[in-house]
Amino acid sequence: RCHHCSTAMLDIPFLPFCAFLGTLGLLCVAMVGTWCQHWRGGFSLDGSSRTFNWHPVLMVTGLVVLYGAAALVYRIPNTWSSPKLPWKVLHGSLALGAFVLTVLGLAAVFCFHNSQGTPNMYSLHSWMGLGTVLLFSCQWAVGFGAFLLPWAPTWLRALYKPIHVFFGSTILMLSVASCMSGINEKLFFSLKNGTMQYKLLPAEAVFANTLGLLILIFGVLVVAALARPSWKRPDSNTLDSRQ
Amino acid sequence: RCHHCSTAMLDIPFLPFCAFLGTLGLLCVAMVGTWCQHWRGGFSLDGSSRTFNWHPVLMVTGLVVLYGAAALVYRIPNTWSSPKLPWKVLHGSLALGAFVLTVLGLAAVFCFHNSQGTPNMYSLHSWMGLGTVLLFSCQWAVGFGAFLLPWAPTWLRALYKPIHVFFGSTILMLSVASCMSGINEKLFFSLKNGTMQYKLLPAEAVFANTLGLLILIFGVLVVAALARPSWKRPDSNTLDSRQ
Repeated sequence: RCHHCSTAMLDIPFLPFCAFLGTLGLLCVAMVGTWCQHWRGGFSLDGSSRTFNWHPVLMVTGLVVLYGAAALVYRIPNTWSSPKLPWKVLHGSLALGAFVLTVLGLAAVFCFHNSQGTPNMYSLHSWMGLGTVLLFSCQWAVGFGAFLLPWAPTWLRALYKPIHVFFGSTILMLSVASCMSGINEKLFFSLKNGTMQYKLLPAEAVFANTLGLLILIFGVLVVAALARPSWKRPDSNTLDSRQ
Repeated sequence: RCHHCSTAMLDIPFLPFCAFLGTLGLLCVAMVGTWCQHWRGGFSLDGSSRTFNWHPVLMVTGLVVLYGAAALVYRIPNTWSSPKLPWKVLHGSLALGAFVLTVLGLAAVFCFHNSQGTPNMYSLHSWMGLGTVLLFSCQWAVGFGAFLLPWAPTWLRALYKPIHVFFGSTILMLSVASCMSGINEKLFFSLKNGTMQYKLLPAEAVFANTLGLLILIFGVLVVAALARPSWKRPDSNTLDSRQ
């Protein structure tokens, strides 16, 4: 049927796509590190803006790139024939790693604000970002309780699975949106004098805007990969999920 | 089967959900209008910040709320038994209306910048926002060519449909992310003196942050509604799409 041939024309193998995504994710981590090291004074734990610099690096690494890797674990076709439990453990572990980096990233910005006497949690960026992290913590805890505890009943897993999948993509979209407002806001704060004004687009502004667009593309591609029906693990869930 | 009963427990009828979404969308439009009218000096066409005020109102109304309405047209179950063509025309017309408001919204901010001597297109917000509008214009033009021109071949429609559906949700996510960075940035610009600093969370800041969160919730709910398998129009597409 013509419908089938045209669908086949859009088929891309998962693994090369995944290698591309991995490269893009590493590029985002390298770029946010370079931005903070080269233009924003580097890193320290003294409560200065060098402490703040951990915030973007840890958030992009944890809540975007490592989170994206955790989300894609079940999409690796080579794993579909083997038991699901080890991959569940890997999925939960990567997500836990992403969560730890995220909490450290929050600690960096709270520590910076407190040592500077700046109030916390006033901007839309902070409201959206903290909301995203709270959703992520619920997602991890409920996911652990429903999918990794061996006594969780099958009907609960079947009921919760589409909710977990939906919030998995939603939390990634929210974290990408938080990164966009965060980078935008940081550039307005940092670039305001002489020839270094944001509106004159100095090299730092072009670099960080480009970083923002790459994070956006990474997030959209991960959400697209998650949504693609042919890349989903075949649903033998009701058979082996009680491992 | 247990899987089916648990899925049934999550079933929500589309129309009440849609009425809720409509109310939420109208609330967002009312709130962005109130913000600009009550705190930002109202509206005019004189190139001042009162001209800029059209920008958030037109973007939220066009690129978020009307766009969301256009996207949901095919999800109305009452329309599934009738021919698709009138609903295609409605979908395309609402999207065109959203696009016209969006272009006027862009015109408002360019006019404001030009009359103030401020450069255009330097912030991450502007890069992301213009990228979103460019994607939207491609989406509308290719959608019109592929689905409304009667001589478009069936194989092309079948090939392009999943791409159109994917970019439909993606463009909405991008426009919501653009709104978040835009509201955040506008509050930093506007609230910077005395007791009206953003970081002291005056009433305007609480109001506009809340508006931001409501736009975010609206966008997430529309994307969720679009993704829900049981709310999709049954695919008789290959039969009646050549109308």
